[in-house]
Amino acid sequence: MTKENQEKPNQNDAKQEEQEEVITEVIDADEQDDTAQTDSIEENPLQAELDQLKQEKDDMYQRLLRVQAEFDNFKKRSQKEKEADRKYKAEEIVKELLPAIDNFERALQVEVTDETKSFVEGVTMVYNQIKEALKSQGVEEIESVGKPFDPNIHHAVMQVEDEEAEADTVTEELQKGYYLKDRVIRPAMVKVNK
Amino acid sequence: MTKENQEKPNQNDAKQEEQEEVITEVIDADEQDDTAQTDSIEENPLQAELDQLKQEKDDMYQRLLRVQAEFDNFKKRSQKEKEADRKYKAEEIVKELLPAIDNFERALQVEVTDETKSFVEGVTMVYNQIKEALKSQGVEEIESVGKPFDPNIHHAVMQVEDEEAEADTVTEELQKGYYLKDRVIRPAMVKVNK
Repeated sequence: MTKENQEKPNQNDAKQEEQEEVITEVIDADEQDDTAQTDSIEENPLQAELDQLKQEKDDMYQRLLRVQAEFDNFKKRSQKEKEADRKYKAEEIVKELLPAIDNFERALQVEVTDETKSFVEGVTMVYNQIKEALKSQGVEEIESVGKPFDPNIHHAVMQVEDEEAEADTVTEELQKGYYLKDRVIRPAMVKVNK
Repeated sequence: MTKENQEKPNQNDAKQEEQEEVITEVIDADEQDDTAQTDSIEENPLQAELDQLKQEKDDMYQRLLRVQAEFDNFKKRSQKEKEADRKYKAEEIVKELLPAIDNFERALQVEVTDETKSFVEGVTMVYNQIKEALKSQGVEEIESVGKPFDPNIHHAVMQVEDEEAEADTVTEELQKGYYLKDRVIRPAMVKVNK
């Protein structure tokens, strides 16, 4: 019985990842042990029982430390996840809105006449207001034209040969790219000089 | 010494909320106990030590149960918070966007002429695309005109007396209200019949 009990910690060490299950097992085992404590051993039954109890108490203490450590890690991990969730919470809706913003910009590239002037102005204000609302949540345009090509923020869809422009720079932007805070949520679609 | 140790569980019970601190204290106390285990008592020193160890092991077991229970509760609470965060994550940005949507609707209430027709159509498509993007994230308009007045979703800014309309119904909407999923993020601003 003593031998069997001393082997338990090793079995449990191996299952460290399944902490919760282990604890339940240990608790069950512990309750069974209480009924078996009166088993006698030749030399000194009390001393043997004492040794066994010390061992069990020590195991319990190690388990307590492990659960506490696991709990602390869970708290930290869960806090980090929460912060990341909150930081980038606008990502999904912004991604849904970007094609509409693209179309808005295309629509505003209209030639303004006397008849359309006031309407175009009113709608341009709306466009700016939407861009400001997005900006307040951390949505920023990626700079591209004239900048060195950067594959992290620019998606090259064409190469051009322009001897007057610098090599490896963006010569034209075909679609705007956007950051959400420090995250690129859409790279700019660009033409790059060879 | 034995008495002092037996009092500890009660002290700790009272501090159950400060679980973490308690565990650290207990662990410290436990280590001190190890060095004091050789204190002798008249009758049978081994039996006294055995009783004390049993008590300590039992305390440790109770603590393990409590930490485990606290851990389980934390997991559940943290999961619920995460789900709520995710469900309403668009709220802040949508609230920022609503005034622009209001202005968009006002701008579109323009009289369409042959000159402005194609521009108004293009911009109306953009408006619809934005509304669709918001809808895909759970943003829905609150119904108001002709509906019974409901202070949970309608904000009455004026009372009218219209004998032809039913009492306590909304006769006019001054500003659209919006839900984000099951949450009212802006009540509709309305006129109500007496």
